Amino acid sequence: MKPVPSSQPVFLAACRREPVPYTPVWFMRQAGRSLPEYRKIRGPGSILDAVRNPEAAAEITLQPVRRYAVDAAILFSDIVVPLTDFGVDVAPGTGPVVEKPFRDKKDLDRLRVTPTPYVAETVRLLVRDLDVPLIGFAGGPFTLASYLVEGGPSQTYAKTKELMWSEPELWASLMDRLADITLASLVSQVEAGVAAVQIFESWGGALAPLDYKASVLPGLRKVLDGLASRKVPRIVFGVGTGELLAMFAEAGADVVGVDWRVPLDVARGRTGYGVALQGNLDPAACLAPWAVLADKACGVLNSAGPVGHIFNLGHGVLPATEPDQLSRLVDLVHSLTTEGRAGLERTGAEGRGAWARGERP
Amino acid sequence: MKPVPSSQPVFLAACRREPVPYTPVWFMRQAGRSLPEYRKIRGPGSILDAVRNPEAAAEITLQPVRRYAVDAAILFSDIVVPLTDFGVDVAPGTGPVVEKPFRDKKDLDRLRVTPTPYVAETVRLLVRDLDVPLIGFAGGPFTLASYLVEGGPSQTYAKTKELMWSEPELWASLMDRLADITLASLVSQVEAGVAAVQIFESWGGALAPLDYKASVLPGLRKVLDGLASRKVPRIVFGVGTGELLAMFAEAGADVVGVDWRVPLDVARGRTGYGVALQGNLDPAACLAPWAVLADKACGVLNSAGPVGHIFNLGHGVLPATEPDQLSRLVDLVHSLTTEGRAGLERTGAEGRGAWARGERP
Repeated sequence: MKPVPSSQPVFLAACRREPVPYTPVWFMRQAGRSLPEYRKIRGPGSILDAVRNPEAAAEITLQPVRRYAVDAAILFSDIVVPLTDFGVDVAPGTGPVVEKPFRDKKDLDRLRVTPTPYVAETVRLLVRDLDVPLIGFAGGPFTLASYLVEGGPSQTYAKTKELMWSEPELWASLMDRLADITLASLVSQVEAGVAAVQIFESWGGALAPLDYKASVLPGLRKVLDGLASRKVPRIVFGVGTGELLAMFAEAGADVVGVDWRVPLDVARGRTGYGVALQGNLDPAACLAPWAVLADKACGVLNSAGPVGHIFNLGHGVLPATEPDQLSRLVDLVHSLTTEGRAGLERTGAEGRGAWARGERP
Repeated sequence: MKPVPSSQPVFLAACRREPVPYTPVWFMRQAGRSLPEYRKIRGPGSILDAVRNPEAAAEITLQPVRRYAVDAAILFSDIVVPLTDFGVDVAPGTGPVVEKPFRDKKDLDRLRVTPTPYVAETVRLLVRDLDVPLIGFAGGPFTLASYLVEGGPSQTYAKTKELMWSEPELWASLMDRLADITLASLVSQVEAGVAAVQIFESWGGALAPLDYKASVLPGLRKVLDGLASRKVPRIVFGVGTGELLAMFAEAGADVVGVDWRVPLDVARGRTGYGVALQGNLDPAACLAPWAVLADKACGVLNSAGPVGHIFNLGHGVLPATEPDQLSRLVDLVHSLTTEGRAGLERTGAEGRGAWARGERP
């Protein structure tokens, strides 16, 4: 099967499960502490200071695109940015902290859709300069709620779950409000020019599947439905979500992000073939010797197959990662899959079989 | 099908997938900070002080057995107890900390099989008094290694994985040594009188399945094989291990513990019918209103089916849990499943179907 030449960027074609000349790559948290040029520009200010400065945020977004041959950029921002009016801040090394956590119905009034014009401005600056698609993003409803209710990071999400179970009506209102806020943020990013969006439902895997389905999925679905007419690929990702992958696919995700715990062929068995998959190298593998890292990257490509796959890590780049390892990794994925596609073109179904068996024609 | 009357305790019969008159229950961390009588006896001393005092450790083990109608006791100890010679301590609220973490080959010499006669003494005191089986335990090889290498708790286990990938021979020696230490600890507990053992491979789910299989499973298998002739049920448990369940079953576990992320019928599909399953209520559900908790407990029972199931939480009891909730939960599981079995007895296969559909005869 000869890949159809595509007029659209490889990343977007893969999101739409169209044949691509090679597997596209980007990395969650490709902009960030692993880059010396990021640490330099950030200086002592807070993350939110940098996000509120469109020139700085655009520059930070571009840094990894200059360094690596990645196939997409991801906006430099934070999932709590649309919640800053609620009193959310980001503490260095700790993550989001909330001065007055969400406790009761009155707190719903403090949760408003707040314009963040600096984010749209950053997007506009970027789409002018970028020659790869820009991914916008927002937090998923459980993940955002967990910060609001816990007041900071948590191991167990016990307070969040307690609210969910003990006050189901208040919880449903909270989910609905957070869906509105997330949707407003993503729509404004799309209108400013992002080509795809990722919903970071990072901590959704802390829930049993039936709890996610009953208490959170309606909010996620509202966000996905609200974006349907916008024609941008919608990626949904979380860690530890092995049992939620099918739900994300059924709820309307175009691309399902998979952490490193679930091999992509297993994930495929759960989602079916209606979505693309994104992932899923263990981020810690980037700290391993190159030969080990290369072997694991091959393993990811083989378990994904050639169609409907965006190569990524299974979570964000670890701060200790050497940027040169990521450079080599991008080049490796591109070169291996270019050869793989050439093999497909030469030998048709036979080549596809060889690819699936991990033999390089 | 009429349940065969069993001469052995219900917990052990369920571990062996024999018919039981009701589903047995125990809770991971049933002894501990959720009990006021525990907080009283512990006072300001360290956990390891209490473990080294057989009278205190036996008393703490008995406290939940007096309070709840649980079907098993679990020894009060800590998975790092066999590693205390290596310089491991347990910091309050933090967990295990290691003064000089494991770094290179020389550190293997510091890792010895060390007798802990106080543990065996605690077991002997307990089996004299207990009228339910006593479960002994130890840490799994990845979990123990993660404390030794990280020097404390970790979110990413990056140092541990880096060692695993960059020094595979040293890592294999470490796994083998830890397996010897774990095995020696469990054998001494069995010889002192425990009726079953649980291997807490708590953090094994941080690895991709192929990494666990290649780099850790040989160590786990050595422990399981070393216990095979002892005729005590061997339980293997870890959180986030949805993709490792089949591996645990194939490696020789008699019982596979499942966290709350994987419904038990899904887990059953992965392990097959050669093992019993243990779990798997979300520990946070014990903080929910009683009606919610009861409903979730029913859900667990229905997804487990009547044979080869030990009811437990999907991880340890949270410190904020009200002991009275756990009392009611034990009674509920016992009463629901007693009725369920009676239903089975009355109506045979039809009753079994009703049970599976969640209808109470």
